[in-house]
Amino acid sequence: MVILIQCKDRVGLVADIAGVVAKLGINIVAMREHVDTVDNRFFVRIVVDGVQEALPVWQELKAILPEGAQIAVNPSTQKKVIVLVTKEYHCLGDILIRNHFKTLGAEVQCVIGNHETLQDVCKRFDVPFHYVSHEAKDKETFEKEVVAVIEKYKTDYLVLAKFMRILSPTFIEKFTHRIINIHHSFLPAFIGASPYKQAYERGVKLIGATSHFVTNDLDEGPIISQQIIPVNHSFTAPDMVKAGKEIETAVLARALQLVFEERVLIWKNKTIIFE
Amino acid sequence: MVILIQCKDRVGLVADIAGVVAKLGINIVAMREHVDTVDNRFFVRIVVDGVQEALPVWQELKAILPEGAQIAVNPSTQKKVIVLVTKEYHCLGDILIRNHFKTLGAEVQCVIGNHETLQDVCKRFDVPFHYVSHEAKDKETFEKEVVAVIEKYKTDYLVLAKFMRILSPTFIEKFTHRIINIHHSFLPAFIGASPYKQAYERGVKLIGATSHFVTNDLDEGPIISQQIIPVNHSFTAPDMVKAGKEIETAVLARALQLVFEERVLIWKNKTIIFE
Amino acid sequence: MVILIQCKDRVGLVADIAGVVAKLGINIVAMREHVDTVDNRFFVRIVVDGVQEALPVWQELKAILPEGAQIAVNPSTQKKVIVLVTKEYHCLGDILIRNHFKTLGAEVQCVIGNHETLQDVCKRFDVPFHYVSHEAKDKETFEKEVVAVIEKYKTDYLVLAKFMRILSPTFIEKFTHRIINIHHSFLPAFIGASPYKQAYERGVKLIGATSHFVTNDLDEGPIISQQIIPVNHSFTAPDMVKAGKEIETAVLARALQLVFEERVLIWKNKTIIFE
Amino acid sequence: MVILIQCKDRVGLVADIAGVVAKLGINIVAMREHVDTVDNRFFVRIVVDGVQEALPVWQELKAILPEGAQIAVNPSTQKKVIVLVTKEYHCLGDILIRNHFKTLGAEVQCVIGNHETLQDVCKRFDVPFHYVSHEAKDKETFEKEVVAVIEKYKTDYLVLAKFMRILSPTFIEKFTHRIINIHHSFLPAFIGASPYKQAYERGVKLIGATSHFVTNDLDEGPIISQQIIPVNHSFTAPDMVKAGKEIETAVLARALQLVFEERVLIWKNKTIIFE
Repeated sequence: MVILIQCKDRVGLVADIAGVVAKLGINIVAMREHVDTVDNRFFVRIVVDGVQEALPVWQELKAILPEGAQIAVNPSTQKKVIVLVTKEYHCLGDILIRNHFKTLGAEVQCVIGNHETLQDVCKRFDVPFHYVSHEAKDKETFEKEVVAVIEKYKTDYLVLAKFMRILSPTFIEKFTHRIINIHHSFLPAFIGASPYKQAYERGVKLIGATSHFVTNDLDEGPIISQQIIPVNHSFTAPDMVKAGKEIETAVLARALQLVFEERVLIWKNKTIIFE
Repeated sequence: MVILIQCKDRVGLVADIAGVVAKLGINIVAMREHVDTVDNRFFVRIVVDGVQEALPVWQELKAILPEGAQIAVNPSTQKKVIVLVTKEYHCLGDILIRNHFKTLGAEVQCVIGNHETLQDVCKRFDVPFHYVSHEAKDKETFEKEVVAVIEKYKTDYLVLAKFMRILSPTFIEKFTHRIINIHHSFLPAFIGASPYKQAYERGVKLIGATSHFVTNDLDEGPIISQQIIPVNHSFTAPDMVKAGKEIETAVLARALQLVFEERVLIWKNKTIIFE
Repeated sequence: MVILIQCKDRVGLVADIAGVVAKLGINIVAMREHVDTVDNRFFVRIVVDGVQEALPVWQELKAILPEGAQIAVNPSTQKKVIVLVTKEYHCLGDILIRNHFKTLGAEVQCVIGNHETLQDVCKRFDVPFHYVSHEAKDKETFEKEVVAVIEKYKTDYLVLAKFMRILSPTFIEKFTHRIINIHHSFLPAFIGASPYKQAYERGVKLIGATSHFVTNDLDEGPIISQQIIPVNHSFTAPDMVKAGKEIETAVLARALQLVFEERVLIWKNKTIIFE
Repeated sequence: MVILIQCKDRVGLVADIAGVVAKLGINIVAMREHVDTVDNRFFVRIVVDGVQEALPVWQELKAILPEGAQIAVNPSTQKKVIVLVTKEYHCLGDILIRNHFKTLGAEVQCVIGNHETLQDVCKRFDVPFHYVSHEAKDKETFEKEVVAVIEKYKTDYLVLAKFMRILSPTFIEKFTHRIINIHHSFLPAFIGASPYKQAYERGVKLIGATSHFVTNDLDEGPIISQQIIPVNHSFTAPDMVKAGKEIETAVLARALQLVFEERVLIWKNKTIIFE
């Protein structure tokens, strides 16, 4: 069982929290605590032994923690996710394979595509695919249709696995801190479109990818994971796109693992990650 | 101030420890706990705010912890180290530069060399150099002379910065868990002599370096840090040696930083590192 | 079109080879040459512009090169491969996805498994799966049955994607330099079985994977690609296995790309790789 | 001996160049060629065996190459460099150590500082230090004084080893493609001042450093080398500065090695690097 807490910091918090857990006779296997001393904010992740009931722990913690504390006590229930895609297969393929073999750490409930391209591969894995075209529609109409599909499910996270439409603030607010994106550059370098073309023109020696939560500002949400791979003068822009796909797939997989294992806390525009 | 504890695990340890700290009115800034569930062993590193007196904390912790607990309460006193070298300059040069500019996190008290080669560079930095030749001496005599030099100082750690003599168990026991070595391979690959020659002959695509505490068995002590760099078919064995020096320097620097910042606990033949 | 040549070195080889290409009016887009000065051996990879006929180039090169020269002139014909598996899905899954979307750089003709576990996933991608059990058979019989399947196809390479049977010299000789394996450790560390258990017990800080051509000696063939990922004290042996799968998948994918793009030459027990 | 050539591409160039070398009875040990097919530009680096006279090779190449070809035929003469610094010691310290032990691949002729901070460490290595303060001077006057120092030497490269003054186009033009800078970020992310503060505020998970040739535009010249290191939520902005210094030192060292070994060609705003 994993316990995640964030709240205002004060002396004695760790003692009080650990005291609650000890009083219930539960053993702590791993614990990581971080204080943002600039913002006086306290973060902790606690892994406890064995199967436990969540509610009593939550109630006891609620009683001793400062007002406004965010407390999550999660027995190892599987997360549920919906994946949004456009045409590129590499991130979705990786997710479908892991999902099929039950190693994703979450269950893919369905895939939504604004093109039909990836319908076939979903079908091969018996994962429902919903085609919602954006063509000849304004953003509001398109997003309403997407939301209508999502609302058929009770989902934990939306994964944008190379979903190439910019979402409106209205959409994003509906799923605060629950949308995970993979961006095809080492943010904040090459914000926006055609990052590999930009990278090619600048003659960089490394390219990267960034997975982040989506907030109102494009490419500006809290970063979960980033990685890079070396490139050189022999790479054309399409070669960089190809190499980039490898790293995009790996970075999104890593970010999803961190989120699904409940290792990620969000504070303002940053993540605290207890790896 | 940093507190390091390891002891037998039991329910309520974190609560009790954090309780002691809270009772003294001290705020915890960062805390990392690990339990080795196989060995039922508890490890914790606690960083607390402000300047604190160590002794009361130590006494209170002693009172509540299981018998045999190892407790270190360290106000930020600087470590003191002696560096042992042979002829290669790269690790020593890096240490001397950092020491000179006070960013090593420790003070180099002196350098001991079994060759005179590196005397000059030590002199340039006003660091005492003791030349103790191993020639025409048995190991026992040589090591006695080295120990005689070391005992002139009250030192915390011995750093083997490319010291090319194998130390006897007698010597090592005198400084249990206080000798840090840099080995020129990605252990356990290429144990023993000429690892780069072995790497060249095997045609590996990566070479590495390993920093570890020295125990009785050659190249077998608890590993602190490892890193690698890519090589390819165009590397001759001497090219690998040259590339290896870069990574040896970096890995030893990293290991020393981890040890000097009190991030390393040793248990059996492994390290627990709270990075 | 890619030209790969290896032969005894002599003065003027590059001039002669480039002369042949120029005489045919073909432009060289990229060229990499390496001489193993210890063995006096010459290696070159030449990429030329446009679509060209292979045979005339081959004949002209044959005429000017030293006796025994190995010359491959490959118009961009797709490679054909057979994948051998046991029970683990991660490498096969990655290969099947790439194969399905035509980005593998080769065509998977069929998959052979000594267990039925992975039959279903192959079926989902319409890739023939041949189940050849090893149970209650001696190695000779088992391998004969495997060879019988392979011989139904005209294949370029056999890919051992976590195939957990040790192949006999007889089998290997049939496919010299055409069998590619992924080994679950950073060779030559942890040769043999249970490398992750060995890594866990040694307390290493990095684990790796190695892709190599298979030769007679177990885990001893020419290395194509290696990579590592960091681990720490919190990793149990099963955690290392899990992390290792990520790197195994990536390393095998990289090795296959290098081989399929004709970037790999083999000489004795090493590879020359023109990345 | 190393030969570097860049010129307009045409069919037969490699044959003609290799022919010249063969005619002189010189053996090619390693050769790498690249054609920028977008710009129809040819680049080659040739390493030949033994000690050779440069002039005849140069003349013969000149005769057969297209007009405007850039040809460098370099017997292994050591490069000469001047290092410009401000107050930070880490890059200079590394350079001085390598210079002292003759492994820099170049000779440091002198160090110029706009502060006196690093005078002492230069003195310790018997390297001349010229203090040229920028205070109470306009940029023109300051740069004239710097140029006056430089002109006392016949130097190949200027190395900006954390030199914190922006140089004018007038200054830069005097040393086209001969000024190497280390920038404290993964360009093009965080261009300009305080990149680590920017990185901290953005909550990135990797920070980097970039070494590049200096051209008129700030932080915009051809990139030679880039690397990154992981950071996390526990890093304050000063922690990032500290971690960044490690990578800055390593990246500048790598870039200098590439340049001094004549592995770098410049074309427009990019480098072609034959590693």
